[in-house]
Amino acid sequence: MKVLFIQTGGTIDKDYPKTNAGYAFEIDEPAVSRILEKSFPGFQFEVKSLFKKDSMDMTDQDRNELMSLLSSTEYSKIVVTHGSDTMVQTAQHIGNIKGKTILFTGSYRPQRFAESDADFNIGVAVGALNVLTEGTLIAMNGKIMEPETCYKHPETGLFETK
Amino acid sequence: MKVLFIQTGGTIDKDYPKTNAGYAFEIDEPAVSRILEKSFPGFQFEVKSLFKKDSMDMTDQDRNELMSLLSSTEYSKIVVTHGSDTMVQTAQHIGNIKGKTILFTGSYRPQRFAESDADFNIGVAVGALNVLTEGTLIAMNGKIMEPETCYKHPETGLFETK
Amino acid sequence: MKVLFIQTGGTIDKDYPKTNAGYAFEIDEPAVSRILEKSFPGFQFEVKSLFKKDSMDMTDQDRNELMSLLSSTEYSKIVVTHGSDTMVQTAQHIGNIKGKTILFTGSYRPQRFAESDADFNIGVAVGALNVLTEGTLIAMNGKIMEPETCYKHPETGLFETK
Amino acid sequence: MKVLFIQTGGTIDKDYPKTNAGYAFEIDEPAVSRILEKSFPGFQFEVKSLFKKDSMDMTDQDRNELMSLLSSTEYSKIVVTHGSDTMVQTAQHIGNIKGKTILFTGSYRPQRFAESDADFNIGVAVGALNVLTEGTLIAMNGKIMEPETCYKHPETGLFETK
Repeated sequence: MKVLFIQTGGTIDKDYPKTNAGYAFEIDEPAVSRILEKSFPGFQFEVKSLFKKDSMDMTDQDRNELMSLLSSTEYSKIVVTHGSDTMVQTAQHIGNIKGKTILFTGSYRPQRFAESDADFNIGVAVGALNVLTEGTLIAMNGKIMEPETCYKHPETGLFETK
Repeated sequence: MKVLFIQTGGTIDKDYPKTNAGYAFEIDEPAVSRILEKSFPGFQFEVKSLFKKDSMDMTDQDRNELMSLLSSTEYSKIVVTHGSDTMVQTAQHIGNIKGKTILFTGSYRPQRFAESDADFNIGVAVGALNVLTEGTLIAMNGKIMEPETCYKHPETGLFETK
Repeated sequence: MKVLFIQTGGTIDKDYPKTNAGYAFEIDEPAVSRILEKSFPGFQFEVKSLFKKDSMDMTDQDRNELMSLLSSTEYSKIVVTHGSDTMVQTAQHIGNIKGKTILFTGSYRPQRFAESDADFNIGVAVGALNVLTEGTLIAMNGKIMEPETCYKHPETGLFETK
Repeated sequence: MKVLFIQTGGTIDKDYPKTNAGYAFEIDEPAVSRILEKSFPGFQFEVKSLFKKDSMDMTDQDRNELMSLLSSTEYSKIVVTHGSDTMVQTAQHIGNIKGKTILFTGSYRPQRFAESDADFNIGVAVGALNVLTEGTLIAMNGKIMEPETCYKHPETGLFETK
């Protein structure tokens, strides 16, 4: 198995790189690299940084750029890390790409936190990637969901199936 | 989705509960509970402690006891956490159980460690569980493998496919 | 030894409490409580939340309020957690209080991070508190410094002695 | 301030370096290096590994070797990390060394654990080192204690003053 991980941004990659000035959380290097480094991966992978954006700031132009990368890459198994607020929207925008399995995931708490859901979520996406043969799907809250039939609940923040 | 997690022991659950005496690592409460607590799970689950054993200490009688639980439980989606050294042996002993998807996983470093592969591995098992409909499989090193065709490499410790 | 810990805010207490919306880091519950909970403290202590402010937002009125609490409390050994940017200014504003040892500290990275200086810094303040008998001091970068003769370096962010 | 940190072993340095075989906790590289790396230290320091022993395995010959290093080193401010079970005994064996401040510390839970008292304890020792001018002391449970008048409580494991 060969997997491409694409960073678009979101909470999972939020870090606190500065030692000066006030509120300084920023989307920094891909958390996926740190997760895989400690997880003894037995498959080949590449981590590519496309955007470092909060998902509220993702535009349709960004989505087209992501689409372009997903279509042109030689990888057939891909994990896209993305902020949760517009993850479903982006996954719907991408839709199915023939011969490719694409899993969108992210996290509620930055991977830098001692208590984060990031490692688990990346694992869920990778576990599903092993088994699926085609499709663009959401991996959040330990569930694999179709973007057409799921949504982020406005109050709990959890991803639910319609 | 409803998932049963069964603890049999192994490195994933190693803790350091004592404040006195020398080398005091012990297999303690199931790490799975702590992982799920911080991972915003959107599915129902139960965590059951069957054994707290290093996998070198697992006997065939233990394996029969595990088999008995797996066969009799109403759950059809099950994750078994297990020490890595005899994980393949136990999974082979269990074999396929009609209508049930069973994923064996564990970790190289205790979940209590700041740098551990435990969260990722549990995620991989849960991700595969979402998609698979039957079978008894190994989820280690980010890969889903058949117990009949994989082994733990004696030098690297990684799970490889024959 | 009996120690009062006073929260005024700053990076040390930054958390990510929300599961919805964009950039959501907030100053939350005192990190000191979590640090002491895992550190087997052998002394009596109380944790009091006075403010949850970034240090850039501390006003002289806030400083007077802190002064008032420091003067009136029965505790003679006190740790004040504070954002680093105006920590020296606040410590100078407070000055020496007869019979009281007051240590100001904080952190560069939130205590919630797996890699944080928070635990170490609180330790440094507590270690100095054990030994000192009077004075208002800064405990940052593993050093105990007089507020009159130290400053936060505008580029490195480290506390230096003039 | 220039500080020498000496590793003798103990729980603070326990790690899990292997991916094969059963119970594999070992005393590994000095935890102090990892703690200081993330704590923005503003003082000069050196970390020296003398032993990697559980404190139950420390012999009087080891203590003499430590004594020899403490006496001959040019450093006047020293932190010795040590297993807790015989820490008092070793500190008493060393006794006062003219012109030197020596703090013994360690931890109840390995520094590798997400929840450990190691960072705090090293901080306590460093905080006291800043202020003290001579003496050989114990820094455990957030307290600075004379080795002659303290002991590790056989049941709670906490360090108490007689």
